[in-house]
Amino acid sequence: MSNGCDAYKILCDSLEERGINLETVKASLREQKIETPSWGYADSGTRFGVFPQPWAAKTLEHKFQDAGTVHKYTGIAPTVAIHIPWDKCDNYQDLKDMAAENGVRIGAVNPNVFQDEQYKLGSICHHDPAVRAAAIERHLECIDIMREVDSTVLSCWYADGTNYPGYGHFRRRKHWMQESLEQIYQALDPHERMLVEYKLFEPGFYHTDLADWGMAYTVCRELGDRAQVLVDLGHHAPGVNIEHIVAFLIDEEKLGGFHFNNRKYADDDLTVGSVNPYEFFLIYNELVDAEQDPAVETDIAYMVDQSHVVKPKIEAMIQTVVMIQEIYARALIVDRETLAEMREAGDIVGAEEVLVQAYRTDVRPLLEVVREEMGVPTSPLEAYRKSGHNEQLAQQRAHIQVSGGLGT
Amino acid sequence: MSNGCDAYKILCDSLEERGINLETVKASLREQKIETPSWGYADSGTRFGVFPQPWAAKTLEHKFQDAGTVHKYTGIAPTVAIHIPWDKCDNYQDLKDMAAENGVRIGAVNPNVFQDEQYKLGSICHHDPAVRAAAIERHLECIDIMREVDSTVLSCWYADGTNYPGYGHFRRRKHWMQESLEQIYQALDPHERMLVEYKLFEPGFYHTDLADWGMAYTVCRELGDRAQVLVDLGHHAPGVNIEHIVAFLIDEEKLGGFHFNNRKYADDDLTVGSVNPYEFFLIYNELVDAEQDPAVETDIAYMVDQSHVVKPKIEAMIQTVVMIQEIYARALIVDRETLAEMREAGDIVGAEEVLVQAYRTDVRPLLEVVREEMGVPTSPLEAYRKSGHNEQLAQQRAHIQVSGGLGT
Amino acid sequence: MSNGCDAYKILCDSLEERGINLETVKASLREQKIETPSWGYADSGTRFGVFPQPWAAKTLEHKFQDAGTVHKYTGIAPTVAIHIPWDKCDNYQDLKDMAAENGVRIGAVNPNVFQDEQYKLGSICHHDPAVRAAAIERHLECIDIMREVDSTVLSCWYADGTNYPGYGHFRRRKHWMQESLEQIYQALDPHERMLVEYKLFEPGFYHTDLADWGMAYTVCRELGDRAQVLVDLGHHAPGVNIEHIVAFLIDEEKLGGFHFNNRKYADDDLTVGSVNPYEFFLIYNELVDAEQDPAVETDIAYMVDQSHVVKPKIEAMIQTVVMIQEIYARALIVDRETLAEMREAGDIVGAEEVLVQAYRTDVRPLLEVVREEMGVPTSPLEAYRKSGHNEQLAQQRAHIQVSGGLGT
Amino acid sequence: MSNGCDAYKILCDSLEERGINLETVKASLREQKIETPSWGYADSGTRFGVFPQPWAAKTLEHKFQDAGTVHKYTGIAPTVAIHIPWDKCDNYQDLKDMAAENGVRIGAVNPNVFQDEQYKLGSICHHDPAVRAAAIERHLECIDIMREVDSTVLSCWYADGTNYPGYGHFRRRKHWMQESLEQIYQALDPHERMLVEYKLFEPGFYHTDLADWGMAYTVCRELGDRAQVLVDLGHHAPGVNIEHIVAFLIDEEKLGGFHFNNRKYADDDLTVGSVNPYEFFLIYNELVDAEQDPAVETDIAYMVDQSHVVKPKIEAMIQTVVMIQEIYARALIVDRETLAEMREAGDIVGAEEVLVQAYRTDVRPLLEVVREEMGVPTSPLEAYRKSGHNEQLAQQRAHIQVSGGLGT
Repeated sequence: MSNGCDAYKILCDSLEERGINLETVKASLREQKIETPSWGYADSGTRFGVFPQPWAAKTLEHKFQDAGTVHKYTGIAPTVAIHIPWDKCDNYQDLKDMAAENGVRIGAVNPNVFQDEQYKLGSICHHDPAVRAAAIERHLECIDIMREVDSTVLSCWYADGTNYPGYGHFRRRKHWMQESLEQIYQALDPHERMLVEYKLFEPGFYHTDLADWGMAYTVCRELGDRAQVLVDLGHHAPGVNIEHIVAFLIDEEKLGGFHFNNRKYADDDLTVGSVNPYEFFLIYNELVDAEQDPAVETDIAYMVDQSHVVKPKIEAMIQTVVMIQEIYARALIVDRETLAEMREAGDIVGAEEVLVQAYRTDVRPLLEVVREEMGVPTSPLEAYRKSGHNEQLAQQRAHIQVSGGLGT
Repeated sequence: MSNGCDAYKILCDSLEERGINLETVKASLREQKIETPSWGYADSGTRFGVFPQPWAAKTLEHKFQDAGTVHKYTGIAPTVAIHIPWDKCDNYQDLKDMAAENGVRIGAVNPNVFQDEQYKLGSICHHDPAVRAAAIERHLECIDIMREVDSTVLSCWYADGTNYPGYGHFRRRKHWMQESLEQIYQALDPHERMLVEYKLFEPGFYHTDLADWGMAYTVCRELGDRAQVLVDLGHHAPGVNIEHIVAFLIDEEKLGGFHFNNRKYADDDLTVGSVNPYEFFLIYNELVDAEQDPAVETDIAYMVDQSHVVKPKIEAMIQTVVMIQEIYARALIVDRETLAEMREAGDIVGAEEVLVQAYRTDVRPLLEVVREEMGVPTSPLEAYRKSGHNEQLAQQRAHIQVSGGLGT
Repeated sequence: MSNGCDAYKILCDSLEERGINLETVKASLREQKIETPSWGYADSGTRFGVFPQPWAAKTLEHKFQDAGTVHKYTGIAPTVAIHIPWDKCDNYQDLKDMAAENGVRIGAVNPNVFQDEQYKLGSICHHDPAVRAAAIERHLECIDIMREVDSTVLSCWYADGTNYPGYGHFRRRKHWMQESLEQIYQALDPHERMLVEYKLFEPGFYHTDLADWGMAYTVCRELGDRAQVLVDLGHHAPGVNIEHIVAFLIDEEKLGGFHFNNRKYADDDLTVGSVNPYEFFLIYNELVDAEQDPAVETDIAYMVDQSHVVKPKIEAMIQTVVMIQEIYARALIVDRETLAEMREAGDIVGAEEVLVQAYRTDVRPLLEVVREEMGVPTSPLEAYRKSGHNEQLAQQRAHIQVSGGLGT
Repeated sequence: MSNGCDAYKILCDSLEERGINLETVKASLREQKIETPSWGYADSGTRFGVFPQPWAAKTLEHKFQDAGTVHKYTGIAPTVAIHIPWDKCDNYQDLKDMAAENGVRIGAVNPNVFQDEQYKLGSICHHDPAVRAAAIERHLECIDIMREVDSTVLSCWYADGTNYPGYGHFRRRKHWMQESLEQIYQALDPHERMLVEYKLFEPGFYHTDLADWGMAYTVCRELGDRAQVLVDLGHHAPGVNIEHIVAFLIDEEKLGGFHFNNRKYADDDLTVGSVNPYEFFLIYNELVDAEQDPAVETDIAYMVDQSHVVKPKIEAMIQTVVMIQEIYARALIVDRETLAEMREAGDIVGAEEVLVQAYRTDVRPLLEVVREEMGVPTSPLEAYRKSGHNEQLAQQRAHIQVSGGLGT
């Protein structure tokens, strides 16, 4: 791309004309960190069964190898979320070492309390105290693991809910949930935190105990400062304005993290930004606005939660990380000074155009330069697809028996 | 209906068999109170204009006459919500007297801060402090009116929001909202309270500042005990489980009241229970469950918010009040003891059947007896339709010029 | 229930007062036929895995035993839909005999072209002609089976679609679909027919090739008279008026059958009528309206498509059949003469009240009499739950290895 | 913009590298035609009333002046849709001349049968034959007007539907609709056509008689070749895949035109592309795919249907036209050869990336050159906003009394 340099120069000029400090933008891009999920590299299924991919991770080591590959190609995916029991092992020191050998670290630890037979009717909200105790125990186990692998984030999602009215008493389940979470929260050290995810529904449900951000927020507020809300982009009712919720939670100091993905109908697990990239830009616009606001303090875990059935795993993950990077770049070049003026003037079209101007800017020349500076391929997805790596993995792994799980 | 008595006897036997105390049920039914809205009696419109009804209320006095008629026929609609400035008048003592002459009292006072030209881009969240001040002033005026008319409820709904991204700064608008509401809240006396309504959207909007129960809840919690959330049944995204939200708010001691209505697509203003009466029953099931729970204290304002474009106003309101009464009756006869046993046993079908059994019971024989005891027609809607009253109103009112408004 | 007779008498009087011919109603109820699905008796799963039920059918014979049990308790579920390959066997004459021994017959035959590895990216719309040929072959096999088991209905549902834009060419896929279906249609004998189902989405999809009734209708119209649309109640976008679609298809002589179930959010498989029984009544209201219209001819297959994860299988199916029967009964007692008058008069409240009056009538006394006359338990679900049959099945079956599938 | 040329050069090189013929792209862009609606220039309202804009068109002449302004600034908006009776006048020859004087022509003629008192319960589906006759008469009047103003398109939208179950008989209303449309269709000359629009709902509705594309399609198919479906982007249920419907209708030779706009929740009238520009790109991708397919013949009317409450009218319309132009440009530069290869190879990520690559290309340098060649401002919105024209209009028009209406 001999034109790359020229395109970059033109982009720089145009950004500077708008008063955007390019070095600040580049610094932010270099500091961006995306966490990918171990379960996103293994085979996953639909309600009809699992459609296996020959190159999919079949062992715990494979998952870290693949996460390492994604980081190698993008430079901004240095951590991996793990899922217990899917990633359970005998020696977590070894697991930490294995991660390091693959160039990554372990990030959030995700307890799974939805797949065992006993959790069929719920976990931390179950009417049977023994089931709740088991679910709490699983969390405490995860907190132990966190300490072994140097993680500080316990990432909690629950499939708790009911399929029909009557057999669940909403208020009683709420109390059980609060009591269960309280026990988990008490086990955290001051530098550790827990993120509580919400979701409108699981297929076939009548209600979920943490149906929306308001419920997760109320529960976290009761727990204390180290409990925060996790926003999964695919977990809302149709039409809900997610960027508004993000801004609201930031203002309440309760936004703890994201699970990035997308949904067209009512399900998550599609590549983030694949359905409505402009909505994703508007979400990032709120994040950058908060980043640049001295009155705001945030500590947000940016995590991917996708488990692809038809897209090749590593390709999909690189595509995802690159999409997040691009959208972040576009949010960084919003001319916030002019935007503020337009707001003051009540200029609706003018304010919108400031956003649109940033959104439709082709930031690829800028990202190519940043990537070059970071020592990764300038076009990560293209480079990976040309590398032949997927085909090699297929050869190595196709015959191995599966051990894995799927995402939430 | 000579069979009425027999049907009542059969119903009584069957309820007693299930351990339902009939006298308690009847006492609850006699104590039920529904508030109807003054704006529900006047002509209202769609975005295409107003389709006038000849019998519609054209004056303030008409509205109270009509509310009085609804109370006369049902016996359980003794109060009327008013809307300022639609119901503005020179002398509120006279207004109170006028209500009394028509057999009703004034209930909640609703400030309107969405219709004046100045509120085009918002009211309590407007970027212009002068507009916010005007909106606050309107509320203070309403609090004064409350005192003149012996009302203790300020019922607040806002059309605040934006139509496009950019010109509204979410977090700044949130601060303005909190500051505005704080000033209003401070003006309340200890025995007075304010109800804060939420709504996912207005037509053409990109965001509303109070989009869901979580936002209204957060705002109210910050204000204090006398600020509570108002649930309008038509203001949720598709699929949202409203009865769950109701139970959640009860548990948080933040459920202040209802605006009853229904929506099929995304709009409110349809007769409550006309789209999904079973959902409405499930909502009342939570209310009765809380009523009968000694650990719970509630003070809930049950208000109708409907403004009919095609249904005749008074007929629609009587139909509505009767529907609410019927659904309440069905919720009262749920066999909660058996339900609790089914829950304990994890019996999903059994628990659901307890609810369904109450729901499909034809409670009309019971209601006929209760109404007879209360001295109102046993079939209020039928009696009204046969009375010729609507036709008389049409003759009296058709030629009068309109003065009125529409609902939220 | 010593009051049963009296309640029945009161109901009869009240219906006759409204001009409802009770004998006609009872005759219709006796002739009602509901088909249950073989896959509804076997264990089914969610994307997280299968939660096994001890009493679930583990063999083909179990499925027919269970369907026979449902028919024995209800008297109106004489046929069973089968699914190929889930119900594949060596000798279909034996299968027919097995059905007969359990008191039922085989109904619709459902080809499964969504679970094999080759169908990962589609079946009759797949870009690879070999995959399309395999899918067509599966249908032809099913048509052969139909003839062996005396079935005349080929019931077709497709998981065809794409997860992301780009890799599927909409118009080309449409042509492949039409060509594939044409080949299948040509194989049908004049007394046989095919039903084509539509569905807005599968989890994770970007598009489905038969997304709505309009697409199924267009395809069927092109095929010919013996291709008709199948309406699955759980396959629509939020807010869609299903009863309107039903009436529209009846008028176009293209309504071939139903898959009964319900959904609260965006998924099917909940018990029909469990979310909005009034909507289900309005659907049946259209069906009865057409039944009683001499200008209309229909041949509608009433089939259940539910596969319960948490409810016990046979209980859920009896509950379902009873719900359908109740709703049909309520639709049969709509006072259509008065309804027509109200329509003529433009009386909106009056017309609605005619429907509501029928809907809120407790038809259980009538159904008890009809059931007694048919020689089945007057309260099928209660009788079954008291029979101890489920517990016996659990003892017999819990240790047997699974062979089964799940529904669409 | 001294960099404009360089940016253009870089863009050209990159497109040519991908095998895109730039001259063809530019020719297509020069031939693009967008029709704007006369009602989009006048004040419009919400259900709360009309918020007037000082610069809004107050007279028929104003509307044509404003449409002329939009065309002057964009070069691709040469026609104006009119609405009867909002644009009714005594002499249509004068109207045609007035359009010509403002540099535009009259496009589609839209009969309004939803605002008169008599249409409260419907128009072409009304149970009263006199109302249906009046509605038909309005259409015949419009056909006469079409001939006077050299229009060939009758654009039909109906607010027909019901608010509650019961008072509308679905099948009977369908017959009335078909009969009414038949009479209108018969009045068309061979070179004239009618476009039939569908819409899921109006606020407060229970059903609309033309609820989805399938109903409009069925009706048009019955009428004949000169009746075609009009797709309004804001008239679908949440989640519906519009681009799929567009492709389906193209394949059935029944796509007649568009009403461009956008909706976030459930309403239309937002600027097209303002909520999900990628979805809009995917729709245009189908249109370009069909344009370039020799087997396909289409004659599609590209019309805007927006009536802005908060955005300044002319600004909003220029912004809209430019958005459509940009999206068309991006769809034109999709590398369809590579896309076809990816499809053949079943390469999901590869196919998606081809689309994304075109979508994220900044086409502004290309459009600037095209505009320069067409003799219009290179940045139409910026040029207009700097022109001071809006302020002049405000001065001239603010004091004039309104005469106008709003859109559908």
